[in-house]
Amino acid sequence: MGRASDRRKILRIDTHGRRHRPDTLAAEEPLEIQLNGSPFTVTMRTPGDDVDLALGFLHAEGVIADPKDTAGAKHCTDSDLNVLDVTLRVPAPSPARGFTVSSACGVCGSASLDALQAHYAEKLRYDLAADPIRVTPDLLQSLPDRLRAAQRIFDRTGGLHAAALFTSDGELICAREDVGRHNAVDKVIGWALREDRLPLTSHLLAVSGRAGSEIVHKAAMAGIPVLTAVSAPSTLAVDLARGWNLTLAGFVRDGQCNVYSGEQRITD
Amino acid sequence: MGRASDRRKILRIDTHGRRHRPDTLAAEEPLEIQLNGSPFTVTMRTPGDDVDLALGFLHAEGVIADPKDTAGAKHCTDSDLNVLDVTLRVPAPSPARGFTVSSACGVCGSASLDALQAHYAEKLRYDLAADPIRVTPDLLQSLPDRLRAAQRIFDRTGGLHAAALFTSDGELICAREDVGRHNAVDKVIGWALREDRLPLTSHLLAVSGRAGSEIVHKAAMAGIPVLTAVSAPSTLAVDLARGWNLTLAGFVRDGQCNVYSGEQRITD
Repeated sequence: MGRASDRRKILRIDTHGRRHRPDTLAAEEPLEIQLNGSPFTVTMRTPGDDVDLALGFLHAEGVIADPKDTAGAKHCTDSDLNVLDVTLRVPAPSPARGFTVSSACGVCGSASLDALQAHYAEKLRYDLAADPIRVTPDLLQSLPDRLRAAQRIFDRTGGLHAAALFTSDGELICAREDVGRHNAVDKVIGWALREDRLPLTSHLLAVSGRAGSEIVHKAAMAGIPVLTAVSAPSTLAVDLARGWNLTLAGFVRDGQCNVYSGEQRITD
Repeated sequence: MGRASDRRKILRIDTHGRRHRPDTLAAEEPLEIQLNGSPFTVTMRTPGDDVDLALGFLHAEGVIADPKDTAGAKHCTDSDLNVLDVTLRVPAPSPARGFTVSSACGVCGSASLDALQAHYAEKLRYDLAADPIRVTPDLLQSLPDRLRAAQRIFDRTGGLHAAALFTSDGELICAREDVGRHNAVDKVIGWALREDRLPLTSHLLAVSGRAGSEIVHKAAMAGIPVLTAVSAPSTLAVDLARGWNLTLAGFVRDGQCNVYSGEQRITD
């Protein structure tokens, strides 16, 4: 356990015929997150950066806001790296509240629509509208290639989502991969929280693939004013981004991009 | 509400310059699933085929096995199509059991690793090893193009996952799209359940994108012996498929494919 990829013997069929060969796959294993020793939730994830994954998830859910809100996080035993316990210095939410997590989930799992809307309407910690960052189209369009270049595990497996954090002048400061789109974002934001870099004022977050509402929510919770996706956003992602003054760009590739929200930050 | 796509005015930047134009986006809205009038879970989904989504999800979770296990499902009011109530003829599980659902989740959310493993080890209803289906590489390799051809909303939005069910001779009998990979599978299997076609003996399921463990789990629960993905599977997806005698093919594109499990079903 604990490896980001693993090998399996497979049957390959192509124009040259068929043959058995070893193949490298993205690892997927469950991670049980415990709070103060009690089971809290389980997520399917790619092993690695588990502490950051847990911290990022707890931050997006509003449980912790600061590295001082935890007194440490560690795998429960050396033999089972799939159980991680986080010791909180703030009140622990009840698992019965209906928190949910999966390889692509962060905000759903509320017990009713009302609860979900309350979850969304929860006051964000940071006012993105006040963020002074401005970006050029060239900078936006350069991010996917640099995100892709940082995907070391994808190169071997073709099976991972990625997220990367950039400074306002385009320096990549953290990149993470995971079988779950949202896990990659949680790992990046959890890293930033652990490094005491929140809020991520004037930073940019780039994600591979599509942008759903939860990605926008996680970025906004961390104070990130600019989010780019290689592919399409959903209606709810766009509507949330507009409500929160977050700049959201999609289809950022091949010298083009669509700006769905916050275009005042795009310079000439 | 209730539309699979919707339009927003966006800023387009490309080599021709920048201009505002309307853009069509894949719709994402929450759906609250109620059981017998009580809130059960919330999933983010693309509106449409909500009954099938709920039935397919409940089938994968082992709550229902047959169309007779429900006495109907309907949106609670004509004005809010985001709440669906399913009337069960079988015992309703408790939301507190920790069911989870999201745009990409079906099996996680158990309160502990032990519970998750018990969930996985739950006896499948159908023995896939007994399924007599045999498929040619040509048939497998033809599925992605036919899946893609059925993606009507993707053509407009670029923002949706897809799943399609095929008979053993390659006839496409049901295709569905959703912002959530797993929702598309739930919608297909829910349709089959409602049509009283389970188990899906000698059928093939094709999915766009990657195959994680939950997709394998949902297919196996419905008795589907062959699963193909356009992109990569994870380690856990492969390991589950091998344990359950499910034929799993990935990277099915451009005249090639990788067979990760169940190669005895691949003919010359």
